[in-house]
Amino acid sequence: METMSWGAELWDQFDSLEKHTQWGIEFLDRYTKFIKERCEIEVNYAKQIRNLSKKYQPKKSLREEEESKYTSCRAFLATLNELTDYAGQHEVIAENLTAKIVSELGRYIQDLKAERKSHFHDGRKAQQHMENAWKQLESSKRRFERDCREADRARQHFEKMDADINVTKADVEKARLQAQMRAQIAEDSKSEYSSCLENFNQEQNQHYHTLLPLIFQRIQEMEERRVEQVGVCMKTFAEVERQVLPIVGTCLDEMSRAAESIQPKADSQQVVECYKSGFEPPGDVEFEDYGLKRTASDSNLSHTRSRSKSKLWPFIKRNRLMSLLTSPRQPPSPTLFTAIP
Amino acid sequence: METMSWGAELWDQFDSLEKHTQWGIEFLDRYTKFIKERCEIEVNYAKQIRNLSKKYQPKKSLREEEESKYTSCRAFLATLNELTDYAGQHEVIAENLTAKIVSELGRYIQDLKAERKSHFHDGRKAQQHMENAWKQLESSKRRFERDCREADRARQHFEKMDADINVTKADVEKARLQAQMRAQIAEDSKSEYSSCLENFNQEQNQHYHTLLPLIFQRIQEMEERRVEQVGVCMKTFAEVERQVLPIVGTCLDEMSRAAESIQPKADSQQVVECYKSGFEPPGDVEFEDYGLKRTASDSNLSHTRSRSKSKLWPFIKRNRLMSLLTSPRQPPSPTLFTAIP
Repeated sequence: METMSWGAELWDQFDSLEKHTQWGIEFLDRYTKFIKERCEIEVNYAKQIRNLSKKYQPKKSLREEEESKYTSCRAFLATLNELTDYAGQHEVIAENLTAKIVSELGRYIQDLKAERKSHFHDGRKAQQHMENAWKQLESSKRRFERDCREADRARQHFEKMDADINVTKADVEKARLQAQMRAQIAEDSKSEYSSCLENFNQEQNQHYHTLLPLIFQRIQEMEERRVEQVGVCMKTFAEVERQVLPIVGTCLDEMSRAAESIQPKADSQQVVECYKSGFEPPGDVEFEDYGLKRTASDSNLSHTRSRSKSKLWPFIKRNRLMSLLTSPRQPPSPTLFTAIP
Repeated sequence: METMSWGAELWDQFDSLEKHTQWGIEFLDRYTKFIKERCEIEVNYAKQIRNLSKKYQPKKSLREEEESKYTSCRAFLATLNELTDYAGQHEVIAENLTAKIVSELGRYIQDLKAERKSHFHDGRKAQQHMENAWKQLESSKRRFERDCREADRARQHFEKMDADINVTKADVEKARLQAQMRAQIAEDSKSEYSSCLENFNQEQNQHYHTLLPLIFQRIQEMEERRVEQVGVCMKTFAEVERQVLPIVGTCLDEMSRAAESIQPKADSQQVVECYKSGFEPPGDVEFEDYGLKRTASDSNLSHTRSRSKSKLWPFIKRNRLMSLLTSPRQPPSPTLFTAIP
């Protein structure tokens, strides 16, 4: 379908177009506000995700450094770090929406406002010109009408004088000359009015069929460019987010990888590394034969007991003992399972 | 590398394992809290996006219904609707994290706590049993020691009596019997102590090499399952978000499609449909010859003027006039461009 031209179809809708183009600018303003609010939401979301990640990061304590040896803790830390990257992607969305839409549209709206102002200024000027031409035409028409009336009256006066037998010839002649003069003046006014009318019609024709359509065409083109700009922005809106999707996907891949790197066996091994004392479980308790020893000497008893005790509690291998002395591992506390005293 | 067994390596770290498994449960609690907070962020984000979409939806006014005829307005509306779907996907993330992690882990932690309690209960019971066995051994050893002492004293007493010439035979015989009896009691205590010791060593051996390793192995397996569960949850965490990515992609595709559906020409056509009055631009103004008409009649003048006026303002075609009467379109307001009156 061939597009109808605003110049031809809307020639009498100057005010409507003024309102419509104003609405068009307000639409862009509103759309800009929409994007800004979307950006705020993204920035806020990113901030919350960042804070979440920070909140669950391990503290710089000895305890949490120890924990970082477990694959599960390392995987959680990796997840938190990927979450920070993920938050960063939502910041990228906000940044790109601001740069590619908010800023661009801001400049565009300024230019659009200036262009619109200029077109409607041209329109008003052309219309003012036609209004003046109309006033001129009216004035020359009124003069012609008045001069006709005067000529008519002068002619009637002459006819009346001419028919009156009591009037002198000189007075008749005077009235005739007067009527002739008035007729001439009316004739002159007629040709001036006629020329003025011809000029007006020519200008009016040009106004409605050349000047006005041209201005309206420019407004139409301006408006079509505006609509096109809306399309560009809306396409960018989707593009900006689409661009981060693969990176979000990578973050998720890394999270999965971190989850898969968890090794229950390695972690229980790490528990051994962390808590192992190096002591051996207690061996058999030896028989203490008071009956046999007593016959020889009383001191034998106490000697036997102390030797037995050292055997009961616990056998420390020489090398294990050395490592106990040089590492921060605490020796087994006297719990029930440490050894039976 | 062969995993070291907690039963063999950590036999004396019962308390450490109790602390470590408690820490493991706290890790799960903390992780659950982390997921809950992530869910809150997602729900909040979705809510904000929904509100944004709602805020910019067209109102149910005549004006905005009119606007919905423009492709740019329709595209914006489509974007807003896709944004609602997009928000929905973040709600899906929150829902799935709740169902697949928070709820699952809640149940799992309950089971884990119960299992852990049971294992440490078994451990304490076994240890209590060994403590009692030790007390029993100590007691039978002390009895043996005491009985040896008594037998020793009785023997010494008998030897003293036997060597004393002032003592009666009857008294010597009495002391001999007493010594014999004490020796027999000591002999009985010795065999009881010996049996008790044998029993204790057997039980202690079983305790440290069978019972305890078995309990510790169960705790180790429980802990390894816990770590595995952490891995499953962390994998789910990434999966839940990965599942919505294609749908988010579809939302973005629809937004792009909406943007591409914007047609500037169609919209400027729509402006014509919306504002067109149907009036034609004014034609040439006709010449009014007062001079000629006046000669015939005065009434001719006024007649001519009114005829001329009706021609000046505006030429309404019959069909256009009909459409004006039946449509809500307002007739052109008397603006400067409507027509020159």
